[in-house]
This record gives sequence, C-alpha cells and structure tokens, in this order.
Amino acid sequence: MKQLPKEDSKKLDKLMNHLQEAAETFLGYPCNRTFDYSALYPFLGLPINNVGDPFMPSVFGLNTHALEREVLDIFKSYTHAPSDSFWGYITNGGTEGNMYGIFLARELHPDGMVYYSEDTHYSVNKIMRVLHARNIMIKSQSNGEMDYDDLYETVRIHRDVPPIIFANIGTTMKGAVDNLDKIRGIMKRLAIPRYYIHADAALSGMILPFVDHPQPCDFRAGIDSISISGHKMIGSPIPCGVVLAKKGNVERIARSVEYIGTFDTTLTGSRNAVTPLFLWYAFKSTGREGFRNIIAECIENADYAIDKMSHFGIDAWRNYNSITVVFPRPGAALVSKWQLAVQQKIAHIITMPHVTRKQIDRFVAELAADLIDTDHADHKKSNRQ
Amino acid sequence: MKQLPKEDSKKLDKLMNHLQEAAETFLGYPCNRTFDYSALYPFLGLPINNVGDPFMPSVFGLNTHALEREVLDIFKSYTHAPSDSFWGYITNGGTEGNMYGIFLARELHPDGMVYYSEDTHYSVNKIMRVLHARNIMIKSQSNGEMDYDDLYETVRIHRDVPPIIFANIGTTMKGAVDNLDKIRGIMKRLAIPRYYIHADAALSGMILPFVDHPQPCDFRAGIDSISISGHKMIGSPIPCGVVLAKKGNVERIARSVEYIGTFDTTLTGSRNAVTPLFLWYAFKSTGREGFRNIIAECIENADYAIDKMSHFGIDAWRNYNSITVVFPRPGAALVSKWQLAVQQKIAHIITMPHVTRKQIDRFVAELAADLIDTDHADHKKSNRQ
Repeated sequence: MKQLPKEDSKKLDKLMNHLQEAAETFLGYPCNRTFDYSALYPFLGLPINNVGDPFMPSVFGLNTHALEREVLDIFKSYTHAPSDSFWGYITNGGTEGNMYGIFLARELHPDGMVYYSEDTHYSVNKIMRVLHARNIMIKSQSNGEMDYDDLYETVRIHRDVPPIIFANIGTTMKGAVDNLDKIRGIMKRLAIPRYYIHADAALSGMILPFVDHPQPCDFRAGIDSISISGHKMIGSPIPCGVVLAKKGNVERIARSVEYIGTFDTTLTGSRNAVTPLFLWYAFKSTGREGFRNIIAECIENADYAIDKMSHFGIDAWRNYNSITVVFPRPGAALVSKWQLAVQQKIAHIITMPHVTRKQIDRFVAELAADLIDTDHADHKKSNRQ
Repeated sequence: MKQLPKEDSKKLDKLMNHLQEAAETFLGYPCNRTFDYSALYPFLGLPINNVGDPFMPSVFGLNTHALEREVLDIFKSYTHAPSDSFWGYITNGGTEGNMYGIFLARELHPDGMVYYSEDTHYSVNKIMRVLHARNIMIKSQSNGEMDYDDLYETVRIHRDVPPIIFANIGTTMKGAVDNLDKIRGIMKRLAIPRYYIHADAALSGMILPFVDHPQPCDFRAGIDSISISGHKMIGSPIPCGVVLAKKGNVERIARSVEYIGTFDTTLTGSRNAVTPLFLWYAFKSTGREGFRNIIAECIENADYAIDKMSHFGIDAWRNYNSITVVFPRPGAALVSKWQLAVQQKIAHIITMPHVTRKQIDRFVAELAADLIDTDHADHKKSNRQ
C-alpha cells in the first residue's frame, strides 16, 4: 500500500477533528466512548475472519473463535443461560441479533405470530418485513412498557397460532423493561402450550446483571433467545453485539457446509474477528466488579441529571434501573448539537460512562434556556403522553 | 479501562503468534493480506457508527458517511452504475450484500422465483430460507458456469412468475462467471417482460474492472444490483463489502425513521464506520492504475501455479480472468496446513496479492508428493466432473 496523496491526508485530519469535536457533545445515544483497545491494534494487520460457527472447528485458521467462545461464556453467566443447552455468536449489532432470534423463532413456529410493543426499536419493522413474519404491534403504556391488557386481548383472539414475543429489556426511547413474568402469566392464563420469547436487551442487557434488584430479564425468566449490544455499554469503535439462544433449537435448523468445513449457523458468513477481541479485552480488563461500579455511577448520574432538570422546572424522569433520562423535546439546534435522540414530543439523554456531571450541567442550562424560549407549559404536559 | 491480567496478556501473545504462523500458509481463501491501515488506527478511539442511509443527513454525528459516499462513488464507476439512479452502502460482507439484493428483488417481485446455479456460494441457501424466497437451483457446467439450457427449460415452465436471477460473477470454488448476455437472451427468447438480475461479484467484482477483456459483469450488462467484497481483493482485517442498486428500486421500499433522523434503508442498523475508512484509504493510496498492476500480477501468478502443477502432472486449470486455480483434492493434512477450500473431489488455491511464487513452489512440491501417495489417476479423472 502506497502513501496517501496529500489532499487526502488533509481530508482525514479534518474528519478526525470533526469527530473529536462531535464526541464532546455526545449525550443522546447509548454508546460508551471510554474504551482503549490500542493494545489490540496489531491484530488489525492480519486478514482474520471468524467465518462460521464459533463452536465448530474450521479450516479457515485465521480466526479468534477461542476468545469469542470465552466472551460467549461470560454473557452466558450474565444471562443465566442453561449450561447444557447454550449457543450464540458475536454479531454485527442489535439488528442481526434480533433478526437471528426472530428467524429462529419463525423456523421453529412457521405459523407463529410476532407480538411487540409500539415502543420497540424501529428496526423491528424491517426485520418482520425481511423475514416475512406475521406480526401485530401491541400498545404501550406511557412509561414505555408493553400494555399487558392489550397483549392479553390480542393473543386471546389468535390462540390458534403460537405467539412469538419480542420483549424489550430496555426500550430505545424510555429504557422501559417489559415484564416477562406478566407475559408468561398471560400465556398460562390463555393455556397456550407453545410460545417463544426473544429479548432485545441492547443496552439493559449490560445494566441489569450489575444492579442489586434487576427486573426479570434473562433465561431464568423464560426467554428463548437474547440480543445484547457490545458497542453500547461495553463500548467499541465498531458496532457489535451478541445473540444467545438454546442449543437444541439452533441444532434443529443448522446445516453443514463443506466449503469452510464448518456449520453455517450464523446469519452472517464471514464474521468480524476483531470485535470479539475487543469485547474479550473489555471483560478481562474491567471485570464484573468493574462493571458494577460503572453501572452504579451511571445510575447516580441519571438521577443527578433529573435533579438538575427538576431544579429548572423541567419534567424529567427515568424508568427503574434505567439510565435513560426522558424530558420534553427541545428545538432543532439543541437536538443537533447534543445529538439527542427524539421521538414526537420527547427527547432523552443517556448517562453513559463517558458522560460527566460537567457536561450534564452545561446541557441542562442550555436545555432550560431552550424550553423557556418555546411553549414551556405545552412541553410539560405532553411529556408523558 | 484497566490493564489486562498477566495470564490474559500471555494468551493474547500466543494467539498473535498462532495467527502470524497460520498467515504464512494462507493460500486457499480469497483474502488479500497485503494491507496496512495503521494510519487510521486513531479513529478506533472514537465510538463512530454509520447508522442509517449513507446518502441522508443523520443526527448521529459520529459517522464517516462522507468518505463512505466517496467509496461508493468509486465502486459506481468500476461497475458502470447509472449516475442518475444509483444507491448503495458498505456492508458487513458478501452475505449481507447478497441478502440485500435478493430482499430488494423479492419486495419488487413478491411472487418472483429465484434461480441460481449449483456452484453458487453455500450462503445462498440460508438467504433463501431467511427471506422465504421461492427458488430453484439450476445445474452447472463443469467449469462452474450456469447451465443455460437448464435455465432456459426451467424458466420456460415458470413463465407465470418474474424470474430473479442470482448470477455468479466468479463462483466460489472455480471462479466461473455466469454469462449475463446469455441470461438476458433467454429472457428475451421467452418474452419475459419483468425480471431482476443480482450479481454476486464477491471477488471478481474487483478483478474484472482491471483486465483488458472483461466478461459482461456490471450494470451495462443489465444487472439490477451487485455485491462485492471489500476484505477479499482490497484486503481488510474486518469482513466488509459493498452493495449497489438502482435508486428507483430502493426508494420504492424505503421508510423514514425519526429516532435517528434518517432513512432505515440498510439491512443493518448501526453500521461499521471503520471499514469505509479502510476501503477509502485503499482506493486513495493504491489507485486504479495500482489495482491494474496488482490484478495483472495475480493472473500471472495463477498461470505460474498452473504451469508448475502441470510440470508435476497435476491437472490444474482456471477460468478466463480468474485467479482461482483448481486441482485435485489432496489429503486432509495438506488441506489443513495450507487452509485449502475443498469441495467433493476438487480443491483450489487463489493467487491473491500476498501469495508469492516461493509459496507456490513450496505448496506445489507438497501437493505433488501428496497426490502421488494417493490414487493419482483417480484424482486426475475426477477433477473436471
């Protein structure tokens, strides 16, 4: 590879400056930026590829399957997956993990109906469309949780087909956790023998294992598969995640492929071998106790932000065990500057590990000024609708 | 992030040694290892993410969309995509690009039937299954090209549904290029008004633009979408690729998503922002003339390997404009050592830019010894079946 022409080098420098600046006001999205994987950069000099099933031997030798399996083992312990029937792989992010979970469910229950709340991440529509999966959107409660009465009534009139529940363990906008006990209770009340629960735990899958009183959120609560992001709470410059499922289910839909001498069980064929190294490094260097401390601080900072906003009369709130702080939507300039995620009349910040109290102070001052400029009363009222 | 415990540091060192060793005998897979992206490593310190459509403005500011668009523009010129109706994005690799192409085709032709040859990459079965796409496998010729008589006869008896052709621009095992002129000729002869052609040009999509007499292989030859790998000929430590399609088709299936303030047009939501930088860097530093030279040398080395094997009486061959050298399958030890891709009675090496004549000499000597040990005559006969 030759040198880059001078004008292109300048372009790169400019991009780097722009990105570093943008990172200073990065409050709206759940991507932790406090990571340092520079010790692993030498691996980027090799054409590594985790093609195929991480648990099967492969002819393609340039892989990091061994460390990928260690990462999966850690996620297994965090999610209390059954030791004797466990499978998973590291994905390119939440969409792939959720698509895998629903694909698996659809293969097991070809006539199944997928149910998900209206607060579910926007990508679920794409997933349903790609998979040709029959689906019904369920109403949400104002806090972002699924409306269980609506779920009950809707499943009741479709008792002839197996339900596939797409449960949110932390919704995108409000950090709400769907109550898995209630969902299973509904299945029981309706005497439904066969159903499948997939959990989208993008962010909260790395929060709830580290709090004192987590909501039911994992395999102990009856889920069949779960998707957790790696670039969110753990942090990574490359989107990634993990999907975990029950081995017995996965084996039913697997098939062998001679070309790479392994099983074609993963949605993606050639797979990133770098992100498993990143996640492994993060787990090994931070440790369970490290994550406990990080999460505790994030929650304290969420409460700090709410207090600050309340001080200015801004109606801010969060769900239990969530670090997503919801408040009335400000004007476009503020949305753009602080890269706020918005939806209808609300916006949020997420007090990820990189968010400092100083940043919160600065942001809240600007937010208060902005909201006073606009129709304040109107914002206050609409926030929880 | 804290320091890594000592035993884990040792584990990393061991893995690095193992990978470097394995890279020395890496002849069977089409992944170029002559790259050096170290100038870009500082970008790995930031939580960058190319979420959403690369051509739309996004609230998520930490992206490399601008350089992604430059890369797409280069691929546009290589594939002669229509300037006024062009769209695409950088994928996580071939599977995503091919899935996107067939997804787009299926959305445009919900009753369509997908046709692909039996030499098509194994992942096509998974794609058909995921997409619930009706499909028929077409016979192949012995060189790996589609059997056009079988295609004609098969489409003829399904003239009531639009054909979706999954064409190989370079098959996985034999590097064969399906003849797009013949395929379109069949559609014309059968008076089929609506059809779709997706091209899987994983490796050859970065070979044919740089040879003097390429087969018909791009938008000029009537394709509607194409998938090309980035980690193959260009080289990357992270699997990646590009999918290009006609904008008019893509717009028909797009939908807007407020959360990230952009269009949810890509299969993956959060997307790798690092690989677009890698590809951009490779294009800018190597240039079109650089790739011409690299490809010419790869083809010369393929011929060199064939000559060497012929010298030992080994029946080796390649397709026109291909750098995939096919020969009789050797024993398991050799397959494992040189990481050879195998299928039934054949194996191949691919003379990628990192493959040296010294490596070829070493390999051919070992191959000759191995094949003499086994039933030589039997191998020779079965090679082209």
